[in-house]
Amino acid sequence: MTALDFQPHDSGVTPRYQEVATFMRAVQAPIAPPLEIALVGVPLDLGATYRLGARHGPAGVREASRLIRQVNPATGVRPFQLCNIADVGDAPVDPLSVERSVESVQKHYEAIDAAGALPISIGGDHTVPLPILRAIARDRRVGLFHVDAHADTFDDFMGTRINHATFVRRAVEEGLVDPRRVIQIGLRGTRYGDSDIDYGDEVGLRMITMDAYEEMGRTQVIAEAKRVLGAGPSYITIDVDGLDPTEAPGTGVPEPGGLSMRDMQVMLRNLTGSGEFVGGDICEITPSLDPTGITCINAANLMFEIACVVAESRARRR
Amino acid sequence: MTALDFQPHDSGVTPRYQEVATFMRAVQAPIAPPLEIALVGVPLDLGATYRLGARHGPAGVREASRLIRQVNPATGVRPFQLCNIADVGDAPVDPLSVERSVESVQKHYEAIDAAGALPISIGGDHTVPLPILRAIARDRRVGLFHVDAHADTFDDFMGTRINHATFVRRAVEEGLVDPRRVIQIGLRGTRYGDSDIDYGDEVGLRMITMDAYEEMGRTQVIAEAKRVLGAGPSYITIDVDGLDPTEAPGTGVPEPGGLSMRDMQVMLRNLTGSGEFVGGDICEITPSLDPTGITCINAANLMFEIACVVAESRARRR
Amino acid sequence: MTALDFQPHDSGVTPRYQEVATFMRAVQAPIAPPLEIALVGVPLDLGATYRLGARHGPAGVREASRLIRQVNPATGVRPFQLCNIADVGDAPVDPLSVERSVESVQKHYEAIDAAGALPISIGGDHTVPLPILRAIARDRRVGLFHVDAHADTFDDFMGTRINHATFVRRAVEEGLVDPRRVIQIGLRGTRYGDSDIDYGDEVGLRMITMDAYEEMGRTQVIAEAKRVLGAGPSYITIDVDGLDPTEAPGTGVPEPGGLSMRDMQVMLRNLTGSGEFVGGDICEITPSLDPTGITCINAANLMFEIACVVAESRARRR
Amino acid sequence: MTALDFQPHDSGVTPRYQEVATFMRAVQAPIAPPLEIALVGVPLDLGATYRLGARHGPAGVREASRLIRQVNPATGVRPFQLCNIADVGDAPVDPLSVERSVESVQKHYEAIDAAGALPISIGGDHTVPLPILRAIARDRRVGLFHVDAHADTFDDFMGTRINHATFVRRAVEEGLVDPRRVIQIGLRGTRYGDSDIDYGDEVGLRMITMDAYEEMGRTQVIAEAKRVLGAGPSYITIDVDGLDPTEAPGTGVPEPGGLSMRDMQVMLRNLTGSGEFVGGDICEITPSLDPTGITCINAANLMFEIACVVAESRARRR
Amino acid sequence: MTALDFQPHDSGVTPRYQEVATFMRAVQAPIAPPLEIALVGVPLDLGATYRLGARHGPAGVREASRLIRQVNPATGVRPFQLCNIADVGDAPVDPLSVERSVESVQKHYEAIDAAGALPISIGGDHTVPLPILRAIARDRRVGLFHVDAHADTFDDFMGTRINHATFVRRAVEEGLVDPRRVIQIGLRGTRYGDSDIDYGDEVGLRMITMDAYEEMGRTQVIAEAKRVLGAGPSYITIDVDGLDPTEAPGTGVPEPGGLSMRDMQVMLRNLTGSGEFVGGDICEITPSLDPTGITCINAANLMFEIACVVAESRARRR
Amino acid sequence: MTALDFQPHDSGVTPRYQEVATFMRAVQAPIAPPLEIALVGVPLDLGATYRLGARHGPAGVREASRLIRQVNPATGVRPFQLCNIADVGDAPVDPLSVERSVESVQKHYEAIDAAGALPISIGGDHTVPLPILRAIARDRRVGLFHVDAHADTFDDFMGTRINHATFVRRAVEEGLVDPRRVIQIGLRGTRYGDSDIDYGDEVGLRMITMDAYEEMGRTQVIAEAKRVLGAGPSYITIDVDGLDPTEAPGTGVPEPGGLSMRDMQVMLRNLTGSGEFVGGDICEITPSLDPTGITCINAANLMFEIACVVAESRARRR
Repeated sequence: MTALDFQPHDSGVTPRYQEVATFMRAVQAPIAPPLEIALVGVPLDLGATYRLGARHGPAGVREASRLIRQVNPATGVRPFQLCNIADVGDAPVDPLSVERSVESVQKHYEAIDAAGALPISIGGDHTVPLPILRAIARDRRVGLFHVDAHADTFDDFMGTRINHATFVRRAVEEGLVDPRRVIQIGLRGTRYGDSDIDYGDEVGLRMITMDAYEEMGRTQVIAEAKRVLGAGPSYITIDVDGLDPTEAPGTGVPEPGGLSMRDMQVMLRNLTGSGEFVGGDICEITPSLDPTGITCINAANLMFEIACVVAESRARRR
Repeated sequence: MTALDFQPHDSGVTPRYQEVATFMRAVQAPIAPPLEIALVGVPLDLGATYRLGARHGPAGVREASRLIRQVNPATGVRPFQLCNIADVGDAPVDPLSVERSVESVQKHYEAIDAAGALPISIGGDHTVPLPILRAIARDRRVGLFHVDAHADTFDDFMGTRINHATFVRRAVEEGLVDPRRVIQIGLRGTRYGDSDIDYGDEVGLRMITMDAYEEMGRTQVIAEAKRVLGAGPSYITIDVDGLDPTEAPGTGVPEPGGLSMRDMQVMLRNLTGSGEFVGGDICEITPSLDPTGITCINAANLMFEIACVVAESRARRR
Repeated sequence: MTALDFQPHDSGVTPRYQEVATFMRAVQAPIAPPLEIALVGVPLDLGATYRLGARHGPAGVREASRLIRQVNPATGVRPFQLCNIADVGDAPVDPLSVERSVESVQKHYEAIDAAGALPISIGGDHTVPLPILRAIARDRRVGLFHVDAHADTFDDFMGTRINHATFVRRAVEEGLVDPRRVIQIGLRGTRYGDSDIDYGDEVGLRMITMDAYEEMGRTQVIAEAKRVLGAGPSYITIDVDGLDPTEAPGTGVPEPGGLSMRDMQVMLRNLTGSGEFVGGDICEITPSLDPTGITCINAANLMFEIACVVAESRARRR
Repeated sequence: MTALDFQPHDSGVTPRYQEVATFMRAVQAPIAPPLEIALVGVPLDLGATYRLGARHGPAGVREASRLIRQVNPATGVRPFQLCNIADVGDAPVDPLSVERSVESVQKHYEAIDAAGALPISIGGDHTVPLPILRAIARDRRVGLFHVDAHADTFDDFMGTRINHATFVRRAVEEGLVDPRRVIQIGLRGTRYGDSDIDYGDEVGLRMITMDAYEEMGRTQVIAEAKRVLGAGPSYITIDVDGLDPTEAPGTGVPEPGGLSMRDMQVMLRNLTGSGEFVGGDICEITPSLDPTGITCINAANLMFEIACVVAESRARRR
Repeated sequence: MTALDFQPHDSGVTPRYQEVATFMRAVQAPIAPPLEIALVGVPLDLGATYRLGARHGPAGVREASRLIRQVNPATGVRPFQLCNIADVGDAPVDPLSVERSVESVQKHYEAIDAAGALPISIGGDHTVPLPILRAIARDRRVGLFHVDAHADTFDDFMGTRINHATFVRRAVEEGLVDPRRVIQIGLRGTRYGDSDIDYGDEVGLRMITMDAYEEMGRTQVIAEAKRVLGAGPSYITIDVDGLDPTEAPGTGVPEPGGLSMRDMQVMLRNLTGSGEFVGGDICEITPSLDPTGITCINAANLMFEIACVVAESRARRR
Repeated sequence: MTALDFQPHDSGVTPRYQEVATFMRAVQAPIAPPLEIALVGVPLDLGATYRLGARHGPAGVREASRLIRQVNPATGVRPFQLCNIADVGDAPVDPLSVERSVESVQKHYEAIDAAGALPISIGGDHTVPLPILRAIARDRRVGLFHVDAHADTFDDFMGTRINHATFVRRAVEEGLVDPRRVIQIGLRGTRYGDSDIDYGDEVGLRMITMDAYEEMGRTQVIAEAKRVLGAGPSYITIDVDGLDPTEAPGTGVPEPGGLSMRDMQVMLRNLTGSGEFVGGDICEITPSLDPTGITCINAANLMFEIACVVAESRARRR
């Protein structure tokens, strides 16, 4: 296997605690060739409505991802051997305006897209996928592998239409996402009412609540995900509150009774080798609410799993 | 559906972080009509024997329950549409005497009972259900849906008969609880000896250890719980140490290998619509041992689940 | 001394850990007679630019202020014997817009002002005093006793003019504050440039850096504060980052080398009996960054000190 | 200098983190010759009224005192070279009764006294000195060097006469303490009323508030302490809340504006070589409220300072 | 049942929070008859390569094991009734040299072995089993029941051959361990490459990844463990990172998707009564990374489970 | 003032929470022109003997130093306008050998020195200055401005001569440091014996204990420091335990009664403009023991103060 240009620190050579923290110890590089997969931070959390702090998610995951090594223990995928992967820094945001931030983030991803790179991002709150999809799904609707405790399909929330409870609906409305190629896994949590779920039913989102997940069993859920996503371009978006709060206490709106990291690992690993994956993100990681650090550690591991899926997909299609 | 007098803050209108913290954002109201379900704090922890601090449980759960919305995602129950529910404040306690506290708590619940309201309480240690039952089960023995790592059936502990290790035995002896209508779920943890378990066997408590829980499976446990409780009046009492310590580290005596919140959610939701539920409590929540806040968040969610069961029961029987 | 209508819980009777948390255990009351001093939460932190979370300040201080008793140990002032003081809840805010929040907060304080009550508030970030002053200083310019690590006199910050770094300048420009009756104490911290300090010099703010504080000594600073404030109406505003970070780690922008709580206590106690104090606030308290709880405890004590000053002032002028 | 029988671990030989934690790494020994100074834990906190947990103080200080070495850097005193000092374990307590605990603690100290050893203790709440003094001051009234934010001179609190707010008054009434040989340093904190201070005035306690401390200056306070204590037998009792909360956040009732550890070190070191010191204690250390560990570390250092004073006193009088 | 010489504190008599912390509240005793099982701390963590602090594991587990009672709730085993079990303190280590520490630890265990006692140890990092096995398996190769996220079978790591990633390989090479009698459970985590796993395959270790664990199911894994270990002497070694990070956040290298405490309890309980168990250890417990304390509490429970297995084995073979 | 090549992020433009964390938000650059001041991490903590974790100091300070702005509020120095300052990453270390680490660190600083840059470093434990001085003081002995609770002048500790308790003695012996140009400030803490202090007296170190600091007063200490250091090349080394533990709880060996950040700020600012400063470091920062983050925040501010001194010195001499 030929080593590519961009190789992360090998923790068997450079101790994990050494050097500036980057995502998965990747090299830092500009948004330009030979970059193939861009690791991006999006420190935007002004779309959240209760406990903020996901703006510190990128910093928290960079530090925690010192733990990541280079080979997937289940699939054997070595993402850094498949693609040139680099940490390109953070998308620019405005600390005093969600609107201006959404615009500047979109522009940043347009540049990534123009450079031919696929983005894997750490939010920020779950408003973040909207500007990303506006940049990378303008020309072709994508499917969504969406893990979350909440469907994020409200029409508006507290009078605004761009926030962390509406991104899926906006993305469908804007033609960025094909609703029939969306699967939402992990839905649960007490609810305000029915409008979000009704919308999902109406446009044909495949919603899998925790009750459904348990009834179907993980294997059947995976099969269903593959069926829904099909062969078209798909995007992975994970709200860490899709995980059980024991796995991700460091988030704004924890909801008991969720998915385990084992569930996530097995699901993501089974996406490897099927379909086309054009990017992914993990959002709502809030380090200030994470005294044990487990949320950031788990997010770092999920980032690696997504990197395996996306890198294999890109390498396969090269 | 007609809105009742007492409606909690809607977090889609009033941000969660706004206003004084009450249980599930309920209104504060006196113990008087039209109150139907009273949310009560019982900051009594002098019956505990190792790490105290459950006296701060009511404050911790009030703050954490800002996260609760209004619709049960599995059963569809909307408790605040079924009954007039309010936070009536805390039962009075004496910080220097468990005996005097038990008396003043009992009197407080006698007033609640006299007002025709059903109580849902946050302890306090697991001595708390005794004065509650003395107030509300004087005239009719109740069944118990009891989740706990420990059977709480000692005759005495360290020379006293009223403490957090004896409440079930006292309640049976005093004719407040029908032992044949008691199911205890989650028992485990290293033991002092056999006297507590022997007592349970003797009087006919249905004890389900974690080994038994796993062998039976959750569905069969639920069926057994319904069978044991039957149609008579039942009371729900949850020691948070019945949960696994990953779900509830903030408690005095954590015991590994316990129930998940998912287990609790599914069990409680399945009690909806069957039998008569006259109240419930969650005890042994210790915020000072809960740096991630997960114990209080989980307790807040359990309070909502109990509220759904009790409100549905009361509305059905109205 | 005659007891007034509104009396807080006496912690020698009702244990501190009992009952819903209100500011200094005060009664909850509507904005209406006989209210004289309104304790208000303002959970607005969208004007901050780094680590958010001051929106949880009111909840944190309500809980911590269970520790407050009723008599000032140095001055002997008993604020609850001098004025009818109540917790009136929180000013309404919009979690997705600083502009709309500033407007709704202003309206809330106009109502307080119209009811004839003086406000003592817990922020929120240090944008909060602006809408307060817009409500209560419309008709007469006030002096400021302003404790802070930063002068908050920028013209704009990151393109916006209403945020936590500009409130003093806005208040001066809008004629709410008389710049010659402003004293700023505790200024320090690395700086962006000179524009904020230059503005203060230009309009005549009395700025006392930590170097100056140390040179003058506390006693002379107190004398200078009394001289600057004079007999006219004055308002107290404390950014907790004016305190040393050892006293207030739970804040967005801690700056080493600040004031001690002892300094604050002695300064505030010496304001008692002089001048006219029409209200006060403490801002930038961030409980999620305060694992020891000391920031909230100190803020609760400062709230009591301000209450003594304002209550004495009001009672004296009655 | 001849080595005595009992020598602690030398951290230059046995790493600090090695071996079972004992007070200042002292040997464990029974209450019997050649014991001269007994280090004792008193895990009794049922006399406290707000945030409990001082029962874990002995364990917390044992662990933290791994940091202590053997020579006082200011006075040069080497306590383990002057006296046989050992950790004798904990006084027995009853987790469900403050009354029974006070009795069993007293008996334990009678045994220590009978063995001819002087006790240095870690509480427990500030009820603890009462049973100690009942044991060791039966036959001769002692003076008190009392550091505290509160005078602990209430007649009763919430209906009981034995608790952490009354021990000084009880000790004076019972003839264990000579009120004219009592100095109380660090008094401050908001107050319930005047009865505690009035009692102190009445019986002649020398009360030094923080205002007085600052006016007199540390040097004069030390002189005054020596004058008050005189040559008779004296006992040192430190409520850690006498320290500023920045120094001791881990306590039940922190009060801003207190003493620094530097103040404590200088005061205690200046007691060396004067008078007769028959024991001492440090109370109200609450590890569950001490996430940084600073309270336990400071208490460990205070224990060493007291050990220097008591060992020097005993060796001098031998 | 006759009480043996060594009986731990009974927490029904002596409150858990009382007395010096020892492992499972056992008596402290020298390495000499009638000692049968030695509880030992090994505060050596210089073999670790990322986040150190397992040197504080023994102290952390001693404190947490105050929670342990005396009867196994599933098997009924009462280890303290079967064998004389004592806390013998810590093995000596050198804080500045892993090599010297490994030597001194080995000597300590040779003394334990010579005294006829079986050791149950708390590390320290996972270098610790090597010196233990060098002491107790010199004369006969043992089998290993090895729970871990990592195989620990590298040949060298960062240029050294004695560290926490190599102990199994060294033990096989040195003839201390029979590779065909080794079962490794819980393997997972991203990997550096293949050399560790290849070695395991080559020498015949039975490696059970989390994928395999899940496919086989717990019951079959237990059967396989019994088959692999057979009747010969076996040693139990648990790296706490074998547990899921939700169960053991306090460790140097947490890996998501691991075993639950329930899994561990059931597996260890099923080893009871089969084979010969000559000791065990739990390593990599890092209290400074364990703010909730759950890691130490779980390790204390695992220590009890191992004690049941080893005590039953020893008593059975007596 | 002309902008230099290397300019850090301006937090008034790029929000503090955006982008990869570097020291004081400086650019990352190689060790080559136009670099004038190199900000370096040295994650070596194997020379420490109790609580390790200073290896994470560089990461902790990089994150915390997002708070630093660009102008010194007291001296007006703008270091980034005076010199080209960059974060050059970390010196290479070996996680399993202090000896090899000391060698590789030395080589790294030789490269920095050869490139004509002055280093400002974040340790690591207080072994770190030794290899730095070996690199930069080979040809000319330097003076030391040394802040510490301990003199670090032992001959050996636990059998090794290179560790965090011996660096000053080694540096004097090796002719790297002129003992008559050394001032040590903040000495205190219980002691092992006299050998370290005796050595300092013997070679003429100017040792200022906290007692001496207080007697002299800060102003006189500053004058004495200037006198001792004189005009020759000097190096600043700060063990964060020189600070009071309230200011720096996150360190291995906290000692009560130390310096405040205010003390440090005033002392360092007064060094500006006098003498020649060739570099500096701050050591013993341990993020895992720093839950409030104050230690890292204070260290970041000290780094800025040192940068002001060194940049002014270098610019002045250019």
